[in-house]
Amino acid sequence: MIYRPVPPTPIVAGLPVTVPFVAPEALQRQSGRVFRLRLGANESNFGPSPRAIEAMRAAVEQINWYADPEGYELREALAARHGVSPREMVFGSGIDDLLGLVVRTYLSPGETAVTSLGAYPTFNYHVNGYGGTLQRVPYRDDRNDLEALAAAAHEHHAKLVYLANPDNPTGSWYPAAQIRAFLDALPEACLLLLDEAYCDFAPEAEMLPMDASDPRLIRLRTFSKAYGMAGARIGYALGPTDMMGAFDRICLHFGINRVAQDGALAALADTAYLALVVGEVAQGREEYATLGRELGLAPLPSYTNFVTFDTGSPERAKALVAALAERAVFIRMPGAPPIDRCIRVTVGTAEERSVFAEVMRATVPTIPPDATTPRS
Amino acid sequence: MIYRPVPPTPIVAGLPVTVPFVAPEALQRQSGRVFRLRLGANESNFGPSPRAIEAMRAAVEQINWYADPEGYELREALAARHGVSPREMVFGSGIDDLLGLVVRTYLSPGETAVTSLGAYPTFNYHVNGYGGTLQRVPYRDDRNDLEALAAAAHEHHAKLVYLANPDNPTGSWYPAAQIRAFLDALPEACLLLLDEAYCDFAPEAEMLPMDASDPRLIRLRTFSKAYGMAGARIGYALGPTDMMGAFDRICLHFGINRVAQDGALAALADTAYLALVVGEVAQGREEYATLGRELGLAPLPSYTNFVTFDTGSPERAKALVAALAERAVFIRMPGAPPIDRCIRVTVGTAEERSVFAEVMRATVPTIPPDATTPRS
Repeated sequence: MIYRPVPPTPIVAGLPVTVPFVAPEALQRQSGRVFRLRLGANESNFGPSPRAIEAMRAAVEQINWYADPEGYELREALAARHGVSPREMVFGSGIDDLLGLVVRTYLSPGETAVTSLGAYPTFNYHVNGYGGTLQRVPYRDDRNDLEALAAAAHEHHAKLVYLANPDNPTGSWYPAAQIRAFLDALPEACLLLLDEAYCDFAPEAEMLPMDASDPRLIRLRTFSKAYGMAGARIGYALGPTDMMGAFDRICLHFGINRVAQDGALAALADTAYLALVVGEVAQGREEYATLGRELGLAPLPSYTNFVTFDTGSPERAKALVAALAERAVFIRMPGAPPIDRCIRVTVGTAEERSVFAEVMRATVPTIPPDATTPRS
Repeated sequence: MIYRPVPPTPIVAGLPVTVPFVAPEALQRQSGRVFRLRLGANESNFGPSPRAIEAMRAAVEQINWYADPEGYELREALAARHGVSPREMVFGSGIDDLLGLVVRTYLSPGETAVTSLGAYPTFNYHVNGYGGTLQRVPYRDDRNDLEALAAAAHEHHAKLVYLANPDNPTGSWYPAAQIRAFLDALPEACLLLLDEAYCDFAPEAEMLPMDASDPRLIRLRTFSKAYGMAGARIGYALGPTDMMGAFDRICLHFGINRVAQDGALAALADTAYLALVVGEVAQGREEYATLGRELGLAPLPSYTNFVTFDTGSPERAKALVAALAERAVFIRMPGAPPIDRCIRVTVGTAEERSVFAEVMRATVPTIPPDATTPRS
């Protein structure tokens, strides 16, 4: 007997099967080539603090026990660090998870979310996945167009606005005054979802001060970037207590793994190591910028752990990504105009940067500005 | 200026703030007492395979990289183990995560799911969380009442039916023929969600054979129980390729952490260790059953890594849980009648079982069948 499959919900049935990212492992399996430089996912090749590694190895010894769903110790440590209440926080398996949680909590099917065209695609993935509607505002001067984003939020009666600051994939950043003005320019009953995954690389003194009591704002943080723990999956959201409590009604209480919790606690305490990574990344950005200018690929100003280079055209950007992959170097390019004329490269270790410079000097001349395919 | 909070969606706004479980860590913080026996969450106190521990410690060294979102190697290994296609599978951060994924994919707001009254509460949590309606069928003779569950599915036009086999919290189990008959008794276009978290402890020869092509059935497995990796958060669902593909449209692609993936792969390969744990658990169940009979607490037949004891009344069960907590022993009791007259105890190591027997012999006589509070 043939059984009729149970149909998914109308929302799920209407979704495309495309996924936001093809992983480097999948690219390796497709090409049969192992990347010697993995500079495409903005992971920290400096790794986590040695103290975090030690804590994570120790956590493995008690992996048979579910982790504390409240993440009590980490919660207390983060609250102290940020000067907020432990109740003004919720954990997730990285910012990807938290984006889904916020969208599910605040966006009913048919309601609108606003983001920049070409911004972090996983936000869009969740908006679509929960039946929301997306309004995308093009980048302007290779950064988020705050004025146009606020205007779009008014025009489309947006419930949610997504802003990454520092931004991915442009690397751009706005200091406190502009973020505050943006917040004030949004419509009433519109929530700003501020993705601060890269905030550790931006000037701390000019950052929007921490205040988790503003009901117009949820801030997202992660241990995947500066803390070097992308594979552990842990991030957190900061916002008013009652809003964080709403997440408690639907989130996966036992979702955060023990290794991530213990590692994050140790990583957080090792401020010296974080400063070391941030300093090294700043130096690497300078080196990348110099290299870009040398090769005629203008570097966009970056406040992150990557540099986005202007190659002049989408065709050239695409050809460069492919040519670098041929040389076993994994980088990415933004997917939407006008920034799809760029390539985005993670700042690696000193050794990796040196290899990268070598490969770039050999590769870029084979793909001149007017070429659409490599000459070789 | 006071800003009006952005309201959550009607579904989320209507949910209670209660969570399915209070964790042992929270109980410890409340009481100021550290449990010397942790036998309340059906974790494996035997721990994972030493090979899995080694793999997880090694994975920490590359924790700065996101894990392969396809889980390619683990997927291939599991497909080979179960004799299914690698595409007939989706990973989640444990079965809790997968329950949410299935409910979100198949249950539109207002649609009905059927489960046993007092069965695993996280399924209910997700049904409520996605705006579904629950119909609960009481246990009969301390096991799932398959006939009544099928009848309820027909009566309420259920889209989803949840069945844990082996069952938690009763420990009961149905062999293949009865599960197959149950599946055939369900209405058309109704999906059976078969939670097999404890399947490694049940008689393998009598288990429903693996066949992931039946569109009426999704089976859920985990590395949290027999494999001893609850703190790592990894489980998987098995079902037809197109149904698993639907999950790909909404699931968190980078959600499974690297330690869990690598640990699961190594754990899966160590079949000898799994057999050892399963054998030890079987012996422990016998010891618990003997102890229960000695103390007048009839043990329910168990096909899991825990034993559920009949204390005679909900009052006595509650008093026993409290009295054991006073003696720093963490166990749980089922929350709904008629099985709330029981206590549920995880099978621990030989040493833990010996301590548990001692504590029970000292505790149970202080709470006679007609007592509602401890005498001491």
